[in-house]
Amino acid sequence: MSEGAVDTARLLLQLEIDQLNAAYAAALDERRFEDWPVFFVPEGSYRLQARENFDRGLPLALMALESQGMMKDRVYGITQTIYHVPYYTRHVVGPAQVLAQDGDRVKTQAHYAVFRTRPGDSSEVFNVGRYIDEIVRTPDGLKFASRLCVYDSEMVLNSLIYPI
Amino acid sequence: MSEGAVDTARLLLQLEIDQLNAAYAAALDERRFEDWPVFFVPEGSYRLQARENFDRGLPLALMALESQGMMKDRVYGITQTIYHVPYYTRHVVGPAQVLAQDGDRVKTQAHYAVFRTRPGDSSEVFNVGRYIDEIVRTPDGLKFASRLCVYDSEMVLNSLIYPI
Amino acid sequence: MSEGAVDTARLLLQLEIDQLNAAYAAALDERRFEDWPVFFVPEGSYRLQARENFDRGLPLALMALESQGMMKDRVYGITQTIYHVPYYTRHVVGPAQVLAQDGDRVKTQAHYAVFRTRPGDSSEVFNVGRYIDEIVRTPDGLKFASRLCVYDSEMVLNSLIYPI
Repeated sequence: MSEGAVDTARLLLQLEIDQLNAAYAAALDERRFEDWPVFFVPEGSYRLQARENFDRGLPLALMALESQGMMKDRVYGITQTIYHVPYYTRHVVGPAQVLAQDGDRVKTQAHYAVFRTRPGDSSEVFNVGRYIDEIVRTPDGLKFASRLCVYDSEMVLNSLIYPI
Repeated sequence: MSEGAVDTARLLLQLEIDQLNAAYAAALDERRFEDWPVFFVPEGSYRLQARENFDRGLPLALMALESQGMMKDRVYGITQTIYHVPYYTRHVVGPAQVLAQDGDRVKTQAHYAVFRTRPGDSSEVFNVGRYIDEIVRTPDGLKFASRLCVYDSEMVLNSLIYPI
Repeated sequence: MSEGAVDTARLLLQLEIDQLNAAYAAALDERRFEDWPVFFVPEGSYRLQARENFDRGLPLALMALESQGMMKDRVYGITQTIYHVPYYTRHVVGPAQVLAQDGDRVKTQAHYAVFRTRPGDSSEVFNVGRYIDEIVRTPDGLKFASRLCVYDSEMVLNSLIYPI
């Protein structure tokens, strides 16, 4: 590739990653939960882990879903069976960093803040942390091979119902 | 257009939209309120609506200004006539999603968080939500044909004085 | 340069600036404090100033480090000598605005929100404001010639230990 083509490829990759993150956030915040597993490849992994454990290399995660099927189960739980007071979420995600690239596989991370709004209440900081992702290119565009959400607060609010 | 030119056009459009959002946020947070109507076309619309109403398709909005003239009136009110305790705002806006494009008209959305700081107090979450915008290209660059701010908390703080 | 080359240069500059901000934030939030001075040129400046003073043109800053050496001292203080309860930080930074460009020197600004998480506690808004930066191109990539953090709350939390 020419230098110009390399530059354009780098710019497009960054754009696509940031757009993937934005679309993911929009799907969750608009409560289109059934769209959530579709952001992953079929054998994709979604994990939610306290920073405390992540930093120490401990395996314990609050949630670990190791396939799109498990994610669909989770969505069923969220929308049909789990008793909980509903709340709104709002994700604000910073620009992703591309940490490594190997062909069609990219390692990235991005900082996120999720705000929660309960009925009749004001908005509050809910969960902040870092997405650590492996993203792959598929015929349907970029998908998460794995998304690890490392959140800063070990004090998990009991109402952490919806995906981060 | 060649494929490379299409890519570059897409990248530039994204850049311009994100820069428009950043400039809008900077004008408000730096209290250059007189600049605020200039981000819109003359017949532009600015609305502020609770998510509750938006999601149900209800028309009720907390504020609906249907022209640049109405926005100028609002700025006059804010800066000259409304009695209120001043506060600082700080917008953090995520990358915009381009939802549709029709010639020089683009539909976009972006997640925002606005923090408020009152004199002598610490900063707090003030208003979070989503901008739903129609943006048009004019000889003076991109402008909002309409900006709809859909905020998550139905509990509107009585001091929602400045534009979001 | 051709028009296409100008466009690509502008896109790449924006990408590099946003990536610099993202890498800076990641270094601090991952507590790689020894990496922090390296984001600056040797004679670089880091200042932390209340908006109150900045807006009035007053010189008083909460912190003013006028070289990489002073920053290294500060890192030594943070990690070795200052008694404090540790806390996690999480930066979410919006896209930068390029305000002026003169050869390899660029003036930019970006809005930031920093969240704090203390052990056993939930995450909270810690410090929000605006980075006002002078960035220069060096053989090692973009570096800060100066970074001024203008924070909105004059009420500085006594535990503002780590860099913003």
